[in-house]
Amino acid sequence: MATFPLAPGSTIGVLGGGQLGRMLAMAAARLGFDVVVLTPEADSGAGRVATRTLVAGYDDEKALRALAKVADVVTFEFENVPAGVVEALERLGAAVAPGAKALAVSQDRVEEKRFLNACRAPTVDFAAIDSAADIAAGLDRLGAPALLKTRREGYDGKGQTWVESHADAIAAFARIGGVPAILEARAEFARELSVIAARGRDGAVATYPLGENHHENGILRRTRAPAVVSPNVHEQAEAIAARILTGLDYVGVAGVELFEFDDGRLLVNEIAPRVHNSGHWTLDGCEVDQFEQHIRAIAGWPLGPAHALAQVDMENLIGADIDRWPALIGEADARLWLYGKSETREGRKMGHINRLRPLKRG
Amino acid sequence: MATFPLAPGSTIGVLGGGQLGRMLAMAAARLGFDVVVLTPEADSGAGRVATRTLVAGYDDEKALRALAKVADVVTFEFENVPAGVVEALERLGAAVAPGAKALAVSQDRVEEKRFLNACRAPTVDFAAIDSAADIAAGLDRLGAPALLKTRREGYDGKGQTWVESHADAIAAFARIGGVPAILEARAEFARELSVIAARGRDGAVATYPLGENHHENGILRRTRAPAVVSPNVHEQAEAIAARILTGLDYVGVAGVELFEFDDGRLLVNEIAPRVHNSGHWTLDGCEVDQFEQHIRAIAGWPLGPAHALAQVDMENLIGADIDRWPALIGEADARLWLYGKSETREGRKMGHINRLRPLKRG
Repeated sequence: MATFPLAPGSTIGVLGGGQLGRMLAMAAARLGFDVVVLTPEADSGAGRVATRTLVAGYDDEKALRALAKVADVVTFEFENVPAGVVEALERLGAAVAPGAKALAVSQDRVEEKRFLNACRAPTVDFAAIDSAADIAAGLDRLGAPALLKTRREGYDGKGQTWVESHADAIAAFARIGGVPAILEARAEFARELSVIAARGRDGAVATYPLGENHHENGILRRTRAPAVVSPNVHEQAEAIAARILTGLDYVGVAGVELFEFDDGRLLVNEIAPRVHNSGHWTLDGCEVDQFEQHIRAIAGWPLGPAHALAQVDMENLIGADIDRWPALIGEADARLWLYGKSETREGRKMGHINRLRPLKRG
Repeated sequence: MATFPLAPGSTIGVLGGGQLGRMLAMAAARLGFDVVVLTPEADSGAGRVATRTLVAGYDDEKALRALAKVADVVTFEFENVPAGVVEALERLGAAVAPGAKALAVSQDRVEEKRFLNACRAPTVDFAAIDSAADIAAGLDRLGAPALLKTRREGYDGKGQTWVESHADAIAAFARIGGVPAILEARAEFARELSVIAARGRDGAVATYPLGENHHENGILRRTRAPAVVSPNVHEQAEAIAARILTGLDYVGVAGVELFEFDDGRLLVNEIAPRVHNSGHWTLDGCEVDQFEQHIRAIAGWPLGPAHALAQVDMENLIGADIDRWPALIGEADARLWLYGKSETREGRKMGHINRLRPLKRG
């Protein structure tokens, strides 16, 4: 087992070959770490900047053995890492961060909400659903319409559907494939915010200023940060993030999605146990960005500062947005991050641009 | 031949596997380029973050052919690239930037000084040396002591010696190996400054604020930037840099080392036709650092802004300095860059740290 803090020259393993893995690899390299990426993709964005790539399925025993052999700590860029993979890596002697508990909680929307409420991180009311009858009972308590989501998997708006009425229960359950689900009360929120926070191996927590998120077709389109929020909202968000990360005995960076209501109340929508798209503004708005912060945390290094140095409007470049590159490369006070994906597909995140302005004081 | 501006997904070739190549590769990746590094080192710092590494000598015809085949533009991290290598790459259809002229001029200290003086970039007086007799004649004109340097190669204080008197001429010539040399008048300068400048394919020039450099044992130890200089010195440096880059029809980033005299006069010490150690402060002190600026220039992208956003004290971590990492990782307002070199050697640049302070206005 590795001893922390990891010395420069140690190796960090990353499960996942997408843009989050890519930016984690770049941050790790800056700090002198080698990076080994495990991904099923032969030609991945993360693999292009990693010291080494293992091209294999995440449950490939041979690849996991190779990864555990070289990596002092293993992390991941997506929350749907099978529990068996983490167990296998740990059995093979690799430290995995953030750990199995964070994954278990965030992989199951019912477990997640139960955990959140248990650690005084408020959420919408919800019901666990195993049948259309459960949906009808849930609507009695939560009101209609209510949002039906698969308990497991689903992202960017996939695996969810609105249930308009009792009459829709059977059809709605069919629409999500008849799998175990959660029914969530409708939240008449005013804004979607998110908070990116890190927890070190020493238990220290660092919280970035809030971002204000705008989605299109279920995909994050823009984050504005630091969001203009009341001191009360800021304090609530910091307290919620700290309770969640401490409750999970978390090591690394997490994204916490929040609903803000007109009265200033916050509810937690969901936790992402990883660096988060709504934290990409930190790449150019903070001294230590979320990727370096995550590497620092999992390596057992002290966390860096998390305050903002600039006002950032982050725009995701999705699908054909990337064709705008000839204009984007000439924009003043804008920082371009492209993900090295060889194929442009509709809805695929190809890069992002951070537009910078002087920080609003207040 | 490539068409400019290069589209994201294009490939940039880098000759050299050290820290400059590494940071160039990281900057290129951020902008969505693939990077192929050619280096004789099997386990190089740059190769660790590149998409692909060709391990071969720089004059290996097969490797050059492979590089020219995949790279849309080829650049280098060191100025001693043999002219034949550039010719071979160009013959094989690869664009090389900065070009053959910049290399030819900067590889020969006599040619360099002749070029500089021809484009009104003043230098110390000098004499071309082919024999001990030339040294004696040179001392008559330049005075003693004078500095004898090999015309070609030599860096970090290597390949040079002071000639104390006429009596020392024969021994001094022997000390540098009896090769073609330059004798330079002693410069009683007050400070060593440097200016990092970029020129785009459109001929635009962007100049970073000056850095003040401190050497130990012939190796750069610290750069403070922006250096506190008079407006006159700032203007001289900008004009000199622009004349040099335009005179060389340069594409990319160059470092220009300067001597500042008590009366505010500047002389050019030498040109480095590449990103430069004294420009590492830009990594954390500017919106667009010298590495991204170089990639932008050679890719035919518009240059980015070059003004300072912070005051930076850059300290090189040389040899055993790297053993101070447990303290360095916890420093507030300091950004660490480590080079992924597996072996620590005396005098070897292992990394650097940028210590940040708010910008001094004035």
